[in-house]
Amino acid sequence: MSRFLSELYSSLEAYVPGEQPRDRKYIKLNTNESPFPPSPKVLQALDKETINNLNLYPDPEIGVLRQSIAAHYGLSQEQVFTANGSDDVIAFSIMAFCGRGGALACPDITYGFYPVYARLFGVDLTEIPLKEDFSVDPEDYFGLERNIIIANPNAPTGMAITTKQVESILQVNPDRLVMIDEAYMDFCGKGCVELIDRYDNLLVIRTFSKSRSLAGLRIGFAMGSKELIADLEKIRFSFNPYNINGLTMRAAAAAIHDRDYYDRCISQIVNTRETTALKLKALGFTVLDSKANFVFASHPDFSGEALYLALKEQGILVRHFGKERIKDFIRITVGSEEEMNAVICKLQEMIKR
Amino acid sequence: MSRFLSELYSSLEAYVPGEQPRDRKYIKLNTNESPFPPSPKVLQALDKETINNLNLYPDPEIGVLRQSIAAHYGLSQEQVFTANGSDDVIAFSIMAFCGRGGALACPDITYGFYPVYARLFGVDLTEIPLKEDFSVDPEDYFGLERNIIIANPNAPTGMAITTKQVESILQVNPDRLVMIDEAYMDFCGKGCVELIDRYDNLLVIRTFSKSRSLAGLRIGFAMGSKELIADLEKIRFSFNPYNINGLTMRAAAAAIHDRDYYDRCISQIVNTRETTALKLKALGFTVLDSKANFVFASHPDFSGEALYLALKEQGILVRHFGKERIKDFIRITVGSEEEMNAVICKLQEMIKR
Repeated sequence: MSRFLSELYSSLEAYVPGEQPRDRKYIKLNTNESPFPPSPKVLQALDKETINNLNLYPDPEIGVLRQSIAAHYGLSQEQVFTANGSDDVIAFSIMAFCGRGGALACPDITYGFYPVYARLFGVDLTEIPLKEDFSVDPEDYFGLERNIIIANPNAPTGMAITTKQVESILQVNPDRLVMIDEAYMDFCGKGCVELIDRYDNLLVIRTFSKSRSLAGLRIGFAMGSKELIADLEKIRFSFNPYNINGLTMRAAAAAIHDRDYYDRCISQIVNTRETTALKLKALGFTVLDSKANFVFASHPDFSGEALYLALKEQGILVRHFGKERIKDFIRITVGSEEEMNAVICKLQEMIKR
Repeated sequence: MSRFLSELYSSLEAYVPGEQPRDRKYIKLNTNESPFPPSPKVLQALDKETINNLNLYPDPEIGVLRQSIAAHYGLSQEQVFTANGSDDVIAFSIMAFCGRGGALACPDITYGFYPVYARLFGVDLTEIPLKEDFSVDPEDYFGLERNIIIANPNAPTGMAITTKQVESILQVNPDRLVMIDEAYMDFCGKGCVELIDRYDNLLVIRTFSKSRSLAGLRIGFAMGSKELIADLEKIRFSFNPYNINGLTMRAAAAAIHDRDYYDRCISQIVNTRETTALKLKALGFTVLDSKANFVFASHPDFSGEALYLALKEQGILVRHFGKERIKDFIRITVGSEEEMNAVICKLQEMIKR
């Protein structure tokens, strides 16, 4: 730490992303990336002319991309906000709507970045325990008198609540902002975008990193009322108006138009997820009911850490979290069929030994 | 504004970027873009394999790019911080080192984003008047008891201070952070990077948007002591660890290796700047001594607004600022020789009429 860092951040603990080791080639099932390359239309969009025009600033309104996303979801451009990955979107949202001294609630077991943002922006965070079975109970979010952020499907459990359940939270908290982080929703259903026109306290957050095979391109977006989006735009124009680069804008717009390609990828990932869950159960694992592109599983005979380390030793990276309630689990991204067969095979050897 | 925006931002006025009109084809000399395409090595770097690997997250350490920048300047990777354009770098820097309630000084006439950041992050900003001749007097920054940010060369004047003058500010303010924004330094000299090892209170900020013809790619960086950079990294890892996308990282690293190409571009821009200044003076303009890739000029017979509007009418976009001290001026980006001939030609017609 330098002598110059603001006291506000002197005890800040940053987020720790999943390992991205460069030393060795792993089967990488630790950061919920898609096993499929992006749509071929992405490659086409990044043509020579686009690259040679990079001497010019990109459109600060991000028109092409916001319009494409809006059209996909039946919204208007003014209802769509885009930033560099959904982390960036969540950061801007918590900054804008919780402010310093604001208050936020989220589940106790969820995406590990929410508490980091609360610390970064000086927001008072209440963590609401998941039920014994790791499900989110909407009633736990009634009358909290604070903004709410819920990942749906939740991470790392993969478990989801219904749109009706989300709606119940919105109805009981009309004066609080409810952020629903749907990073994994494409592996599960349509999510709650349809509620936007009826609830001005709803902000839906999405990403291109998972179902659209574009983690490397960094695109996340939020959808909500025009007023909420205008607020986020004001913060963006006060922070970094040219936040989405010219290549990303074009490539992401091309991706969102290619529904067929991604529908096929998603359907294959969902199939592999279900097969993997069955095979894990056959090996004695407890597997939560995941609606995402990962499974979260524990075994009565091995700790989560032992499973994680044994797989790493064998060249397979999965994710283990040290938090007490989930320390027996490992989170395994649903990769290709071959990758999942390799995981099952290694776990079988370990368990049968 | 929604009902949910934090009171902190209720009166925030966002930055207004230079016009990026889509309605008509202009000769665009209003946002200091390079007239040259990026190095051909950028096109090579964005190959099919790189694009098809976008399903994977980028390296959160941004190793390839930080190493390339470090090597270029004779530093180590730990002395380099990268973000999405130098705006993003400045935002993170003011957030980290001024914090809410901190204090900052900058010239009264300078890059218009500094006051926006001060408002966004709740920083008390003192604006130090430039001298009558629009120069920065280093002595005005002695003993201010606050952090300092100076654009060098300054914008929109284009005027520069020497490295010795920067050093005098560093010496007199050993306990204050001095940020030198060298966005335009490549058109002028080597800047003050050489001082980093001797002054732990120096942060040098650079961009790929101007001299490297990559405004569309969004890459800015900061160089300073390992401790300062570690602080910025902590904020980045608490905000958006994967902030630089995979394409940008590779393309920017390729660009920084192609010194020859950019040396030729820079030398041509500097030549055109000098010729343009001479021609403007011959037309009766006052032209400040610009060391950047733009000229800042006023004419005794026309207001800045009249010049701006007349040129826009003729299909040429330049930038005019409403601020009292500089309202007689227009800022003209140094484009290609043909573009500058067109500007001179139009101004000649207007003046001789």
